[in-house]
Parts: sequence; C-alpha cells; structure tokens
Amino acid sequence: MATRSNPLIDDGLVDFLLYSVLDAEGLCQLGAYEQHSKETFDLYVDSVRRFARQDLLPTYKPMDEEPPVFRDGRVHTHPALPALFGQMVDLGVLTATCPETVGGQQMPTLVHTMATAYLMAANLGAYGFVGLTHGAANLIEAFGTDEVKERFMAKMYAGEWTGTMALTEPQAGSSLGDIATSATPTDEGHYLIKGSKIFISGADHGITENVVNLALARIDGAPDGTKGISLFAVPRLREENGSLVSNDVTVAGLIHKIGWRALPSLALEFGDEGDCRGWLVGEPNQGLRYMFQMMNEARIMIGVNGAATASVAYHESLSYALGRKQGRRLGARGGEQISIIEHADVRRMLLRQKAIVEGSFALLGTVSRYADVAEHGASEEDRERAGLLLNLLTPIAKTFPAERGFESNVLAVQIHGGYGYTSEYLPEAYMRDQKLNTLHEGTNAIQSMDLLGRQVVAKGGAALRALAEEIGSAIARAREAGCDPELCSELEEAMATVGSTTMELGQRGMAGDADGMLGHSWDYLDMFATLVIGWQWLNMAAVARTAPISEERRRATEAAAQYWLRTEVPRIPHLANLCRTNEDSYIKAEPEWF
Amino acid sequence: MATRSNPLIDDGLVDFLLYSVLDAEGLCQLGAYEQHSKETFDLYVDSVRRFARQDLLPTYKPMDEEPPVFRDGRVHTHPALPALFGQMVDLGVLTATCPETVGGQQMPTLVHTMATAYLMAANLGAYGFVGLTHGAANLIEAFGTDEVKERFMAKMYAGEWTGTMALTEPQAGSSLGDIATSATPTDEGHYLIKGSKIFISGADHGITENVVNLALARIDGAPDGTKGISLFAVPRLREENGSLVSNDVTVAGLIHKIGWRALPSLALEFGDEGDCRGWLVGEPNQGLRYMFQMMNEARIMIGVNGAATASVAYHESLSYALGRKQGRRLGARGGEQISIIEHADVRRMLLRQKAIVEGSFALLGTVSRYADVAEHGASEEDRERAGLLLNLLTPIAKTFPAERGFESNVLAVQIHGGYGYTSEYLPEAYMRDQKLNTLHEGTNAIQSMDLLGRQVVAKGGAALRALAEEIGSAIARAREAGCDPELCSELEEAMATVGSTTMELGQRGMAGDADGMLGHSWDYLDMFATLVIGWQWLNMAAVARTAPISEERRRATEAAAQYWLRTEVPRIPHLANLCRTNEDSYIKAEPEWF
Repeated sequence: MATRSNPLIDDGLVDFLLYSVLDAEGLCQLGAYEQHSKETFDLYVDSVRRFARQDLLPTYKPMDEEPPVFRDGRVHTHPALPALFGQMVDLGVLTATCPETVGGQQMPTLVHTMATAYLMAANLGAYGFVGLTHGAANLIEAFGTDEVKERFMAKMYAGEWTGTMALTEPQAGSSLGDIATSATPTDEGHYLIKGSKIFISGADHGITENVVNLALARIDGAPDGTKGISLFAVPRLREENGSLVSNDVTVAGLIHKIGWRALPSLALEFGDEGDCRGWLVGEPNQGLRYMFQMMNEARIMIGVNGAATASVAYHESLSYALGRKQGRRLGARGGEQISIIEHADVRRMLLRQKAIVEGSFALLGTVSRYADVAEHGASEEDRERAGLLLNLLTPIAKTFPAERGFESNVLAVQIHGGYGYTSEYLPEAYMRDQKLNTLHEGTNAIQSMDLLGRQVVAKGGAALRALAEEIGSAIARAREAGCDPELCSELEEAMATVGSTTMELGQRGMAGDADGMLGHSWDYLDMFATLVIGWQWLNMAAVARTAPISEERRRATEAAAQYWLRTEVPRIPHLANLCRTNEDSYIKAEPEWF
Repeated sequence: MATRSNPLIDDGLVDFLLYSVLDAEGLCQLGAYEQHSKETFDLYVDSVRRFARQDLLPTYKPMDEEPPVFRDGRVHTHPALPALFGQMVDLGVLTATCPETVGGQQMPTLVHTMATAYLMAANLGAYGFVGLTHGAANLIEAFGTDEVKERFMAKMYAGEWTGTMALTEPQAGSSLGDIATSATPTDEGHYLIKGSKIFISGADHGITENVVNLALARIDGAPDGTKGISLFAVPRLREENGSLVSNDVTVAGLIHKIGWRALPSLALEFGDEGDCRGWLVGEPNQGLRYMFQMMNEARIMIGVNGAATASVAYHESLSYALGRKQGRRLGARGGEQISIIEHADVRRMLLRQKAIVEGSFALLGTVSRYADVAEHGASEEDRERAGLLLNLLTPIAKTFPAERGFESNVLAVQIHGGYGYTSEYLPEAYMRDQKLNTLHEGTNAIQSMDLLGRQVVAKGGAALRALAEEIGSAIARAREAGCDPELCSELEEAMATVGSTTMELGQRGMAGDADGMLGHSWDYLDMFATLVIGWQWLNMAAVARTAPISEERRRATEAAAQYWLRTEVPRIPHLANLCRTNEDSYIKAEPEWF
C-alpha cells in the first residue's frame, strides 16, 4: 500500500531549520566551532541519516518483536545490536559534541540534535545505548577526577564500555531525596555500595563486555534528603590485576516494558555480597546538583526522542494516506475510489501531526542552539541570555514532543483504520514507544512544576522577558515578511496573556501561597507550550517567505502555521483563566470522594 | 500496592444513575416492562456484576497474554472461553432485552446496558462473543423469514451457535457501497456466496460448534453502490441430513490485533470451492438499510465498551494513587512520604478520568432509556421524540467514550508512573483495548459526518430542538436545586452557541456547500459532545442534591460537574468559531504539500 519508503524525518525540514531558520552556519563564527562549516555539518548529518535509513530502520521491528530475555543471571539483547552499536561509534555519534581532547568533533548541539533524531526515529531503543553511554561519560568528564576519567570515561567514549544512569529506587521513584542506597568509605579510595535500583536502562546486555552505572547513593552519615546524595561510578565488572572481575552488581529482574524494546530496563542490586565498589564522581553530597546540571541535556534528548517517534509515524501514515483508496468526494456518486488523503478529515489529522512534529523539531533546534551559545557564546551577555532561555524552554522541549507527540502517534494509528490496530503495521509500536517520554526524566507534571515554580520566576522573571523579546522579534519579522497580520496579532496577544498570568501567579508564590500558584501548573504548561510552538510556527512562516525552499514547503509551512495559530493558540485565554482563578474542583477534592 | 480489589464500575454510580437520575422504575409503567420492578432489575444487575468480578476479571490478563492461534485452518481460542460463554448464556445476558417469545426477559436496554458494562470492564474480548451473537440473531429476528429464524436464530439465542457481523472487505473498508462479495441465486432457496471479508470478529473459535456470519453481499445483477447490497446468513457449517457439514467458509488469516485479544479477528473466504451457501435475510437490496437500523444498538454498545474500559482503568489507577507513597506536600521538608493522591496533579488526572467515565455512563444510560421509550413508549409522540433524541445522540454515545475514554486510559497509565509502562500492570492493556473503539463500527470521523451532515439537520432540526428542551429542563432543575448559577449559565450559553452554529452550518448545507458545512465536522463533534456531557454533569449535580446518596458521592458529583463545566465547556466558543469560519488550513492543503 505504501508508495514510498519512510524517510524518518523530512530532509528538507532539517535543511530549512539548520540553514534558514536557525543559522547553523552562524555558529561557526564562535571560537569553539571555527573548524566547522556547512560542509562538515552536512557530511555528519548525511552519514548519520543514511545509516539510520539503510541499517538501523530495518532492525526496528525485529527488535520490537524479540525483546531482551533474562537467563542465568544475565540479560541477552538482540544479536544485531553489537554491530549496530559499533557502526554508530564509528560514525562518531557517541562523541560528536565532545571536545577534540576526548576524541570528539566539537559539533554544535544543534547539528547533532538533528542528526541523532534520524537514529531515534529509526530505532529508538538501539540508539538508547549510545545516548546513555554519552550521558554517563559526559558526567564523568564534567565532574570526575583524572583518575576516575582514566578508569571509566575513556573506554566509554571509545565505545568499549557502555554507561547507564542509575537514579531510581523502588521506594523513591521521582522523589530523589528519598534515595537509600548507601556508600561506605574504604581506605582504598573507593566506596562500598549497597542498595537496590529499578528501571535502569541498559545495565546489562550483550553489546560490550562492561557497563558503568552512574549511581546516586548516600555516603554513611550524610545529611537527609537531597543534600546528602553523592554520585558514583559503579561498574558491572571492575579491573583487578589487568583483568575484569565481578563487582557484585546483580540483575534482580528484567522489566517487561511496552516499548523501547531493544533496550532492557532492569532492577539492579548493588553489594548483595558486600563487595560492590563505587568511585566517587566529584565532591561528596553534590550528586543531585551534578545530575541536574546534566539534566537539561537529558531532557532535550527526551524531547528529540518524542519528536523523532512522532515523525517516523507521521511519515508512515502519510504514505498510507497517499496509497490507500477508499470512498469518494462529498456528494460524488460512483466512479473510482479516491486516496484517503483527499478526505478533508484525513488531511486534518496529517496537518495536525505535521504541526506537532515540525513544531517540535523547530523548538528542539532552537533550544539546542541556545545550549551551544550558553556554553560557547562570544560574550558573557550572550551566554547568560542563551542560558536563561535554555533553562526556561527545557521543560517545554521535554514535554511538548512527548505529550502532543503521543497524540500525533495516535493519529497515525487512526489514519491506518483497522489496519492501524494490528501489529502488522508499525504505528501501534511507535505509539507504545512514545508513551515512555511523558514518564521518564521527570514526569511531565514534574516538568510543569519546574517551569512555573522555578524557571519563569527565576531572576525576577528575566528569562520570561528574554522570551518575550524573542517572540516580539519573530512577530516583527513576520509582519515585515508579509505574513497574515491576524496571525501576528494572535501570537502577540497570547504572549501578553501568558506574561500577565505569570506575573499574577508569581505574586501568589511570593506571598507564600504555593498551592494557589501551582494548582494549575499542568494548564500553565499547556498554555506556555502552545505559545512557544506558536512562536516557532510564525517564525518558520516568516522565514519561509524568502528562504530557498520549494513552493510546496512554503505553502505547507504557511498552512501549518495558520493551523497552529488559529486552532491551538486561541485556547490560551481559557487556560490562563483556569490558572488565574485556580479553579478548585480537583484541588479541593478529598481522596475519599473518588 | 493496591489497597482494594477493582470494582470494575462503581456500584453506587450505577444505582445513582438507574434510580435517581434516569428513573429506571418509571419504565415499569410501560406495557412492555410491566412485569419488571426495581427488584428484578437489581437481581439481574447483581448477578451479572458478581460474575464479572469473580469469574470474568481473573481471566482477562491470561487471555491478553495468550491470544488465539491459527493452526491447520482453524482458530484456537483460549480454553477458558467455552465455560465463561456458557455462564453468560445462563445469566441470560444473550437474550435479556429480547421478548419472551424468543426466550428473553424483555429487560429495558437501560438496565441491560449497565449490567453488561461490568462484563465489558472485566473482559472486553470475552464478552464480545456474546454481544456479536446477540447482534446477529437480533438482525434475523427483526428481518428474517420464519424459515431463516428457525434455521439460525433459535440456536443463536440459545447460545448453541455464535454469530458475527461480516461487513468489511479489504478493498472497501468503511465504504460499504464498494462491497463486492457476490450472491448467486439457486433453485433451492439459498444463494451461492463468493468473496473475501476482513476484520470479522469471532468467525471461528473453540466455543461452540458453529458460527453464523451475517454477511453483506451483492446479488447478481443488483444495482451498483449501496442500493444493491443484500443481507445473508452464511454459516460456517450447514445442516444436511441432520448433521453439520462444511459450508465452504474458510479462514484465510488471523489478524494480530493489539487489544481485545480474547476475540479473534479474521480474514474469511466465502466459496473458494463454489459451495458456500447463504440464506437471504429480508428483502433483496435492503441489506444496508437493515444494517443501519441495527447500527444504533451496535454503536451504543461500542460506547459502553469504551466507558467500561475507561472505568476499569480508572479504578486501577485510583487504587494505585491511594496506595503508592511518594514525595511530600508542597513546601514540606522531611517526614513520611505521602500517598500520591495527595498531589493536586494526581487528583486532576483522577477527577478528569472520573468526569469522562461517569459522564459517559450517564450519557449511555440516557440514550439507552431513549431506545427503550422509542420502542415501547406510551404514545406515538413519546416514541417519536425519544427516537429523535436517540438518533441525534448516538454518534456522541459512540465517539465520546472512545475518544475521551482513550485519553482517560492514558491518564491511568500516567498515574502509574514507570510501572504503568510495564506489562506487569494492567493499564497499558486497557489502553490498547480502548483504541479499537475509535475505529470500528464507523470511525469517529465518520460519526462526525453522520452527526453534522444528517442528525442535527434531520426533520428541520427537530432533534436538536428536542435536545435544547431537555438541556433547558436540566438547567431549570439545577437552578431550582441550588446549583452554582454560573455553571448553569455556562451550559445555557453553550447550548445557544451550538444552536446558532448548527443553524449557520445547516444553511450552508442547504445552499449546496457541503464542504463549507462539513469541513470542521470533527470540531463540531467535539463541541457537541462537550455540551452533551456538560448537560449530563449539570443534571447529575442537580439530582445529587436530593438523591439518597452518600455525602462523598454528592460532593464528588459536584466537583466533577464543576470540573467539566469550568474546564471543558468553555472550549465551545472557540470550537464554534472554527466551524463557522471554516478555518481552511487543512481544507486547502494539497497532498503534495505534505
């Protein structure tokens, strides 16, 4: 039925975002990226996307159908994974954004984000091993001593060992202050670790000989709560006399996940036999701070996971809608059946998916660029401003692609009709994959508390003012480019509404009324995200008017911008009203009422 | 973690709906139901709910995990099914609503709907065999000759044979006018059937010896399109000389569905060997009319499927939220962790589920009662008015529980956090089950076309006027009962908006502009459903003020009503605006733009 192979992500979109909307080439003006050019960017993105389409995508369905098994104390992952992991290492994906000193290419995060999105779209779980290894090694790079770096980081960046993030415990979940895993100092430089972890992705597999778990634990006698948590490198095997021996890290169980099935999620036990060694990363009791410093990157990665998963399903449903013949135009009698894309409601579902997918990628590109400038910007002022915007927008970058991406994935199933309800077609699997993104790296509700309780009010609202300026500039650009003035006004009013609502809620918070401020943090998140994606779409529509793109892309960009600004942005006044009035139906509800 | 067993559906809700809100006892005034009383209703509902909880629910997970297999040309269903099916037959579920002449109890649809909802909540797929058999036998009862009734119906109502609805063909899907299965007359009273069907649920199994497929086919020489389709009973085995022999109906394949896994969905071939006999039901070329006459019942049943599946998942997440300890109150430091239901955002997710689940059941009860009065009402006027309201509300009764029920099921997963993403917990399975309901018995988009293109404009808008009267009465009742006047006004304005929008769109349709009328039928459906559920909630809140219910239920009903009227109903002006302006982003979009 499909009339074309799945591109995973539209290459034209990626080009448009990188070179027309987000000025990736402009980054080459910065010292850190001076060795780069459009040519090196294209070379990297092209090699990664080609691998994603040719080698990675065909492995997706087999890995979904044959998830890892737990046998004789070990986890057995899909046999195709070692070769694929090696190919991704060879492509430089693991260290692309790292400095040359650790073997990297110092690639801008912006370019890397767009490249890795193809890998995630092709096989989310398989890419997961790379993403986790990078994240764990990066933590050691940032905070570890030279000894710890030498012991662990080099092998991880070389792809010889993989890494994990071992935060969650059964009794603590999202409440990291309740972590109970203990770390007892020894005279030999390491600590003895004891405790249980759960939902640890990739902590055992058949890809590389060893795994380094970056684990949160509490040093004996440390303060209670979040202030007494330290970060440790806890390898599955440790080196002794030149060979690898057991480090008393055991797999207690394999969790049967409903998606991301290439990547095992495990329950781990550290120190069942009292011989699990961990090496402190950085200073004692700073573990949570280190984690949070890395969390922006992790949250943006979740956003890219979400956008990529929505994108591959969007293209799947687009192919189906072009190929599947059914029904006739309104009022027509007889004659050949038409492709279902000819039905207005199918185009509604496609345009909605497109608005979500491309709006997500635009936002993720934008925040990735802020991450680059925050670290390597030309001036302190540039870096600070980019850092503010990065922190402000990260909760949106994490949640929007997950939340609306799931909705988009559901539409891809719906377009497939009864066939979408079968495992013979891919969309149901992408829907399962997507659901995780609203849950991990902090549930979306937790993100909403971070956004409203912390980011929008930080530094007297400086980040929100910077965002208002950015949105103002985009509106001015759109007006100048000749975009529909009503769409410009719609966004302008939305920004004003979000601004005044935030001020009102912030004042409640300052007056000590946390419940009054945060009772509708979910609606606030929805409102804020709707505005931010509206900004991205108006900006894209403005840029599209003069960018070197096809007429179809220009028209499609205008249509999607119109869709978002007319259909979604007008929801903002109502959401603001819910926040302002602190509508109290569920707030006052007692547990016994349910 | 769970602190109580899953009740499937809240018994207090069912009592409240049956006896306080919907006056089930009042139906006993009608001749058809005069042998009934609250006692006979309770006896039936109680026996069914007890069976659902004790016998059916424990079989759900095993059947989800061990779906049917296709081996040696036959389908092998779960071994527990024959006994369960027999028990449901013994409980009288198959014929409860039928007249005594065919062995039924003449139970009001209203009561039957509430009773069967427990079965669906316990094991949707297992109940499916009963629902399908009833539907197929009922078609024969309504339209078949005595000979056909005798040949098929009696055995089906006795639970000796099961039935299916065999409409869909691979090339036709929702476009029933494109059905190509042929029926060639013979001199022996039957027809020879030849063709392919797909997505035929329950067409083979190990429960009973035979299956009767109610199939749509085209008699040789019949007119093209929908006007040349006839209805046939096509058994898997036919009787010859007192024994059952093959009727040349073969299973061409088993479809791997992602939910409803107790019930096999099959591809069938009729007449591969030229020896498949079908018996005409009713008149030639009236097949589609017959089907549509039965479709209301089928669509309401899908609505009950949706509400039941959302309900069981809601209760699962409620138990989890009561039992799971995590985090602390805003601003609290240290101390014991609290149950997650103490977090406002978790209560938001629970109250939203409750509003969707109970609002759905209220609507389904309302339309079921209209179905009873439409058939057995005391006067022609009563019957006609109930019939109008039934037809008008059926697209909402089908789509709302499916669409919002899915959203509700997703919230149940979300409340479970990382555990919700595993197959060790049930919510992910309920989420998979629910998705089918937006697709079968006419996709939800098709329902939106039926609502706007047909029902609201039928008979000069008579049905919509009747609805406005019903809503007006509920508002008056709420005002008199002392409900919040602002909530009453909110609903009043919403009704006015829907009314004027409908008039405007109807005028476009009358002027021949079908595209201008139906371009936003999806948004129209959303708007209409939001109004209708707002009506149900305001009505329930009004009744709750004096009904003999617990204080907790009264407060909870008020909270849920407030939630819906403050959070959802205010979306109506925006949706109306989209319909009125016929916002054209996806309407004008060309296939090449995507």
